[in-house]
This record gives sequence, structure tokens and C-alpha cells, in this order.
Amino acid sequence: MSRRGEFGFIDFIRSNFPDPEGTTGIGDDCAVMPSGEGELLFSTDLLMEGVHFLRNESSPEDVGWKAAAVNLSDIAAMGGTPVATFLSIALPKDALGEWADRFIEGYTEISRQFDVPLLGGDTTSSLRDIAVNVGVLGRCPSGGRLMRNGAKVGETIYVTGPLGDSAGGLKAILMGIERTDDVTRLICRHKRPIPRIEAGRILMESGKAGAMMDISDGIGSDLRHIMKASGVGAVIDLERLPLSPELVSVCKEQGWDIYEMATSGGEDFELMFTAPAGLENELDIAVYPIGKIVPGNELSWRFSNEPMDRDFDGYKHF
Amino acid sequence: MSRRGEFGFIDFIRSNFPDPEGTTGIGDDCAVMPSGEGELLFSTDLLMEGVHFLRNESSPEDVGWKAAAVNLSDIAAMGGTPVATFLSIALPKDALGEWADRFIEGYTEISRQFDVPLLGGDTTSSLRDIAVNVGVLGRCPSGGRLMRNGAKVGETIYVTGPLGDSAGGLKAILMGIERTDDVTRLICRHKRPIPRIEAGRILMESGKAGAMMDISDGIGSDLRHIMKASGVGAVIDLERLPLSPELVSVCKEQGWDIYEMATSGGEDFELMFTAPAGLENELDIAVYPIGKIVPGNELSWRFSNEPMDRDFDGYKHF
Repeated sequence: MSRRGEFGFIDFIRSNFPDPEGTTGIGDDCAVMPSGEGELLFSTDLLMEGVHFLRNESSPEDVGWKAAAVNLSDIAAMGGTPVATFLSIALPKDALGEWADRFIEGYTEISRQFDVPLLGGDTTSSLRDIAVNVGVLGRCPSGGRLMRNGAKVGETIYVTGPLGDSAGGLKAILMGIERTDDVTRLICRHKRPIPRIEAGRILMESGKAGAMMDISDGIGSDLRHIMKASGVGAVIDLERLPLSPELVSVCKEQGWDIYEMATSGGEDFELMFTAPAGLENELDIAVYPIGKIVPGNELSWRFSNEPMDRDFDGYKHF
Repeated sequence: MSRRGEFGFIDFIRSNFPDPEGTTGIGDDCAVMPSGEGELLFSTDLLMEGVHFLRNESSPEDVGWKAAAVNLSDIAAMGGTPVATFLSIALPKDALGEWADRFIEGYTEISRQFDVPLLGGDTTSSLRDIAVNVGVLGRCPSGGRLMRNGAKVGETIYVTGPLGDSAGGLKAILMGIERTDDVTRLICRHKRPIPRIEAGRILMESGKAGAMMDISDGIGSDLRHIMKASGVGAVIDLERLPLSPELVSVCKEQGWDIYEMATSGGEDFELMFTAPAGLENELDIAVYPIGKIVPGNELSWRFSNEPMDRDFDGYKHF
């Protein structure tokens, strides 16, 4: 791969993302889009080399996938539909060319899978570390979006899929353990998270959910955001947390604390929401009840209905 | 200043930016805004420490101001009105606390001056360099926005203000020359650029402008974008470039090439646009004719109607 300079790189991105009808994407001072109906949603995430990914551990394609995935997940967390993403990328000299092109391949792959155009961004240089910022614009019918402040006492707390797989995959990478099929699957869940856009939209349309968010820092941290925003407490029944067979078997083999992983490991990007009990029998998608919203402001943990003496508090950024 | 951790920093930002009526800003998975009328505009810029600013040369307040200014300028460049900004910031340990808080002060100052709310973003850590990404959402009446591809042969090329001041200020900083009043004014133009939002809107509403963009890399580079997008050539008359008295006097004193600065130095953030000749007599704002759109695809330079044998080609990012 040759160094084609800034404009060559932009042309490459542009060739992967033709403008949808009625919009103007890359190439002018701003992207231009129709306003459309309902409400607008916007979210953004900044990923730094050395903090969010390591160049010798993550393939550029995986970094590209994940940079888009975490943002699409925020739109899913409101029950919204993504309209477009915007990508800013700062590249040190040694990441120009191959690294940058392969990053765009991964970014393009997930964007096509979820049919979301890239409509703009910024490319620039960096002295040392790669920096990637993704912004995503979404839409939701007026009043439909599911916020963190809608949880009500008595509601059941649900998640849309297994917890802890991503944390297990990350730990497997960091500890360099043997890559059995199970371990490989966990690593894939860590590197290629799936934003639950369809699940989010179904929950929004059901009209049943109170509060919703995506699980990025582990339920031990994320649930506290719903509690604080809604002014409620919560009880989680650990034995009800959905766990993948892969995680169960790897944790057994390695002697890892599976509940620590399922509650405090981040980046599962499943959705967590509150709704009346019994919703698991009413939807076309799988949802798993894991606890209950209660009065107060405490988060407590039970196992087989017995209170536990320990806390799980999720991942902190700094 | 103490280190208050991620959520304390977010609370500080939040206290500076109360949510406008009908919107939900910082604190949920996404910001929520009404769709509104017309078309949406979006632009984003990523600033890296060591490339776009130096911590020992720029005050944090100036970096905060400029990070917002360059993005608001992109909305101005379309003739749009800014609706909201979104700020992502990655901070190494030694920039937490004072640097970060002072950055927010500068960002808040310009946001209040132009009445633009900050509705979301991301805060995270960085190993070494500070990274700042700003995204801005704007609006424009349907079909009103001024793109780069609207220039027509025969139109006059205009700019909205003096060129080269920012480049002069930067050079003064880099060379460490004595800070006379004139030099200080140039440095201020470099550190605190003013997005020409009002001028952009007036030009959009006039219905007279063909193409428009903001001058971020110098007209020698930026004009080529208009030419390429519009399929036209251009001639610039160097003696017509508006030059500030400060730049003229500092260039004379220091022996700097003023035309190099006015054409190839970046970051003036004035607007450049094309329109029928004579528009300078029809508007309530000052606009300066500097050249003409011609057939072909060449950019040529004249001085007192004499063709010049040299080219000015603007600033390149990598």
C-alpha cells in the first residue's frame, strides 16, 4: 500500500460509501440531510490507541468494526434507528496506508450490515497514537425514545443477551491463554460486538419498557445510571444472569469468577431495560429477567434469594 | 483543582450547559432533539495535541475556543445555523483537573457568544496526547445551503474579511518575535478565530451566492476545492486580497512574504464565495472581491493584471 496522502484516503472512504438519495455526504464543509420526522438522536465515542485498543493486539478491521458498533449501540439503547455516522481519525505516520485502509474495511463491513451510511468526518495526523472518534445520528418517533429515567418501582429488570462474554474474551487476550473454540468465540464477542438495533426498536415499539440503556461498563456500573436517573433502587438475582455456555466452560477451566465478569466486565453491548414482569413471554426476541426495581437508592445482589455481602461495581474510565 | 474523576468532570460540563427547552443533552445514551424544519447539516473536526496545538504554547481556554470555532465555521460555510455541539475529549493524567476545566471555560465562552448548546459527547483517558473531537449539528432552510459545487463561470470570487492574519500570528509564535500590539492582534486572530455565522446566513438569505466555503487551509488550497467541485477555473488578483494593517506592518518589519501568508497560511475562517459582480455594494456586511471564476480547471494568479509565474497552494495535513 502506498501513502496516498489525505485526499487519497478520503477518496477511498468515499468510494466505500456512496451518498443515499437526498443526502450529500463527504466532500463539502458539512454533510446535508433531510430533517425527517420525529426526534433526532446523537451519540459520539472517542477511542484512543493504548487505552481502547492496542495496535499489536487488535486487527485494524476489528478496531474499525468496534468504533462503529459502540456508537450504533447507543442509538439501539434509545430504541432508535441510525441515520448516518461521522468518522474522525488521527493517524501517525506509521498507520497511514495499510492500517488506515484495513480500519476502513472493518468500519465499512459493519456499516453495510446495518445499512448505515458514513456521511462525513475528518482525517488528520497524529504525533504518536491513533485517535478515532465516531458520531452517529439517529431518529426515533416523537416521544418513543427510551431514556434512563423511566424505571418504576415494581418493574422487572431485563437484559437482551448473555453477559460477561466480552470481558472473558478480553481476559483471555490479556492472559494469553490457549485459543480453544470457546475462547475464540469469547474473543470474537469482545472484538466484534453486535449493536442490538433491532431488539431496541422492538422494545421501543412494544411500548412496555420503562428505562433502557446499553451495557458498556457492566451492569454493576450501568444499572446505577438508571437508578440515579429514575430515583429508584434495584435488586439483582445473580443466578438469573444469562451466561453463555462458552463463558461458563472457560471460567470453570481457568478458575475465573464468572459473576465478577458478568456484572463488572464491560462491552457486552446487550441492552438492559425495565418493564412489567412477564414480558419475556410476549416478544419475538429473547429477553432475560435478572432482577427488580425497588424503592430507595441502593443496588443489592442476591443469590438464590439470599442477600450477598459483596458488591460489583463495573468498569471506570478514569 | 482536584481530580474529580470522569463523572465529576461531566457534571462540571453539564452545569455550564443547561438543556434548552425540548431537548435532552448530557446524561443518557444519546442526546434527543426535535427534528425541526428544513435540512440538517453536520460537521466534525479532530484536534490532536502536538499537531493542532501545543500545551506549552496555547492556553487551555484558547484550545477550547478554537475547537468549537472551527466547527461552527463549517456550519457558517453552508449558510446554516448551529443547533448543538458534541464534544469528545481524551485526557492524559496530567491534563485532568486544571487543564480540562480551563478548556471547558474557553469552549463555554464561545458557545455562549454564539448561543449554541453542548448536548453530548464523550470523556475518556489518553496515554499521552490530548485529543479533542467536536461535532456540530446545524440547520438550513431546504435547498438554501451553499455548497462548493455552485460556482459558475463569470462569477466574482469574494472573501468576507482579511486573509493571512492567523498565519502571521502562528509564525510570530513559532519565531518568538516581540509581542507588539500588532503582533498580539495577529496572535489573537490565530488563537480565537471568529466563525462567520452571521455573514454566512446573510449570504445564504441573499440568494446571490453560487458556491461557498470557509477558509481553513488558505485560498490557494481551498479555492481548488470549489474549482474541482464546480468544474471551473479561477483567477485571483493578489493586489485585491484584503490585508489587515497589522499584518502589513508586521510583514514589513519582519520581511515576511505577505502574499504567501494571505494565500497559503490557513485558519483565517473567513468565508470565500462566488456571486455576481457588484455584490459588495448590495449587502449590509463587508465582502471583498478578489478574483473571477473562469472556464477550465486552472488556478492562476495575477498582480495588477499581469500573470504571475508562481503558485500558492495552501496547507496540507499529511
